[in-house]
Amino acid sequence: MPKLWNETIEEHRRAVRDAVLETTAALVMEHGLRAVTMSKIAGESGIGRATLYKYFPDVESIMVAWHERQISGHLHELAQLRHGPGGPGERLERVLEAYAFIQQRRHGHGAELGALLHRGGHVAGAEQHLQHFLRELLAEGAQAGDIRDDVSPDELASFCLHALAAAGALASKSAVRRLVAVTLTGLRPPG
Amino acid sequence: MPKLWNETIEEHRRAVRDAVLETTAALVMEHGLRAVTMSKIAGESGIGRATLYKYFPDVESIMVAWHERQISGHLHELAQLRHGPGGPGERLERVLEAYAFIQQRRHGHGAELGALLHRGGHVAGAEQHLQHFLRELLAEGAQAGDIRDDVSPDELASFCLHALAAAGALASKSAVRRLVAVTLTGLRPPG
Repeated sequence: MPKLWNETIEEHRRAVRDAVLETTAALVMEHGLRAVTMSKIAGESGIGRATLYKYFPDVESIMVAWHERQISGHLHELAQLRHGPGGPGERLERVLEAYAFIQQRRHGHGAELGALLHRGGHVAGAEQHLQHFLRELLAEGAQAGDIRDDVSPDELASFCLHALAAAGALASKSAVRRLVAVTLTGLRPPG
Repeated sequence: MPKLWNETIEEHRRAVRDAVLETTAALVMEHGLRAVTMSKIAGESGIGRATLYKYFPDVESIMVAWHERQISGHLHELAQLRHGPGGPGERLERVLEAYAFIQQRRHGHGAELGALLHRGGHVAGAEQHLQHFLRELLAEGAQAGDIRDDVSPDELASFCLHALAAAGALASKSAVRRLVAVTLTGLRPPG
């Protein structure tokens, strides 16, 4: 069945948008936010400058859009792990490890870019979503006896998110795994 | 023995300085940074405006000086607990609880004031000092068998400081104590 013209247009627009996001993020990571111009992005993405401006008004808004896409990708990845196989304890472990690795990777952004990316409301929204999501998984775990029930799932979720932020300063994958193990020990029912 | 003239001057200057710091902090906490002027501070401190300017150039620098004094007070308090009575496990518990309460109190500063106070290098310096200090106490605890030794004291110190930052969003003292208990569980030898 041939595609409708509208679908083709929509697909094309999405492909251009994705290419612009990838190109811009790569340029900014390599050269820093200040060194990247709209002309440079247009050139590297293989589109005209005028076309680029139909998609985005400036470099900052491209980076915010890229970050929104990153975050929704991460939330999607964590949701899949949450609903994966195994008991709540195992699934929690997979979710916390994946979250810690995300924290470790994202640390490379640098202060200026970090401030820009956190200006939008999408980060606060994602954090709230994550807190809610972890709370439910922790409540499941408490019911199954994998997780302590003398502290509320909400307080435990906040403990996890703060503790795992320490991954941002860790250099190796094994250090991140140790951090996850220490955090999980805190969540277990007390001996 | 009568005091030397220089000592009297020095004492007087310190008393004026302390009064200015207290007054300014109280005014800023009540009315917000933007609403407080140098004239208002001079009036409330009971000194002339010209005298105030001999001590500080503006409201921001008073607040930074106040914050430096707060931080060194906190570090002093934590150092006393560290060198207090009892085994390393007990002393660690007292230090972590005191640190968590400091985190809870300081959360009231608000975003604008928080950004100002963290601009100076003194906060980074204090954090480094605290990390070093906790690392030593954790190493002592590991040697005494109170603290796990499968993860380095440095990584455990970073875990503690991040986890206890969650106290900033906690409303009650008992919630802070639960957070400290969960964090301590993470530090205990596994199994």
